[in-house]
Amino acid sequence: MDVYEALYTTRAMRRVKPDPIPEAVQQKILDAAIRAPSGGNSQTWKFGLVDDAGVKAQLGPIYRECMSSLWDTIYKDRIAAAHANPEDPESISMLKVQKSAQWLADNFETYPLFLFGFSQFDPSGGSIFPGIWNAMLAARAEGVGSAITSVFFFQLERVMEVLKVPTDEGWNFAACVSMGYPTGRWGVAPRRPVHEVSFRNTWSEPLGFEIPAPLWTPEG
Amino acid sequence: MDVYEALYTTRAMRRVKPDPIPEAVQQKILDAAIRAPSGGNSQTWKFGLVDDAGVKAQLGPIYRECMSSLWDTIYKDRIAAAHANPEDPESISMLKVQKSAQWLADNFETYPLFLFGFSQFDPSGGSIFPGIWNAMLAARAEGVGSAITSVFFFQLERVMEVLKVPTDEGWNFAACVSMGYPTGRWGVAPRRPVHEVSFRNTWSEPLGFEIPAPLWTPEG
Repeated sequence: MDVYEALYTTRAMRRVKPDPIPEAVQQKILDAAIRAPSGGNSQTWKFGLVDDAGVKAQLGPIYRECMSSLWDTIYKDRIAAAHANPEDPESISMLKVQKSAQWLADNFETYPLFLFGFSQFDPSGGSIFPGIWNAMLAARAEGVGSAITSVFFFQLERVMEVLKVPTDEGWNFAACVSMGYPTGRWGVAPRRPVHEVSFRNTWSEPLGFEIPAPLWTPEG
Repeated sequence: MDVYEALYTTRAMRRVKPDPIPEAVQQKILDAAIRAPSGGNSQTWKFGLVDDAGVKAQLGPIYRECMSSLWDTIYKDRIAAAHANPEDPESISMLKVQKSAQWLADNFETYPLFLFGFSQFDPSGGSIFPGIWNAMLAARAEGVGSAITSVFFFQLERVMEVLKVPTDEGWNFAACVSMGYPTGRWGVAPRRPVHEVSFRNTWSEPLGFEIPAPLWTPEG
């Protein structure tokens, strides 16, 4: 697969089948993850694959509680606003994200695989998220859909206990990535264009160019 | 370029030529950046390209001060240990990283381009580093070398002032990425193998497989 196809079509794929992910594919995913950079090449990271039904059965209820907390706190106003004005494009997008994220929560135990990322001495996240994202790009190349979720932050202690993470050694949870073979189709996710989210030299200076449509499309 | 070639060979490339990066390449880099995921697809990110000689002349001295701070604090013991035992493989690696990072500091103003990443409401870094890393992967595909650096954290206020970042709106600095056409060659960077940094289901359980050598090599 061309690198641009991977970069443009690795979108959140939460609706997946329960079919297991073969070991050869898991190897490609993890071996890509460790190619990412980390501060001073310290590699103070840990990647955990979770596929055991018993462990998933412990994590599922925790995840659903976390998801409820997310809707009731950070997203509360946005969801209320979306319901109040459901025709608005932003509302449609918000409710679509909510539905998809809730699907993940409701079906947690049916996912064949989760990838957990942990790091030490990494306050910015810059030494773990390139690795996590590499894993997701490699998964895409292998036809595996993934979605990154941080909602376990609401119940972190319980998650760390289930996964037996030595938090006394300074290991921090970075993210959980759901993985599975998608039921839907790959595509380029909607984004605000580059010139709206970029500047040149100083904050208020324009970039000097606009990119009205994605530079890569499935049609070529 | 195949996605795996990009994932495996996007290593820190600090020694670069001063040759400018054409606008068409800058467009590919930024348009790839915005394809990354962000929490709830919020896209509360900002990407800044810095190529103005005057702005670089302001940032260079700040960067060199930050680099001195880094060596004198976080890396102090490791560098002392490396000098005390310079034949050790870990020492060799440490001193190599130091030399390369110091080269960036010494030659800051000669880099043709820097990419700065900022985010709002993103405590984990999970909503900005996939985008930054996408930019670096696209740069690699275009033959542009890059390196991610966080050392501006030591003098953040001054950096934010130079770039005129509205910190009162909650914008946080995530990372600075140096970019330029490399003088050296691309290659697969050394990494600890997957089975040493991974687990299955719970922390102390082995993964169930080992990957003794990179699954992708330039030789194919």
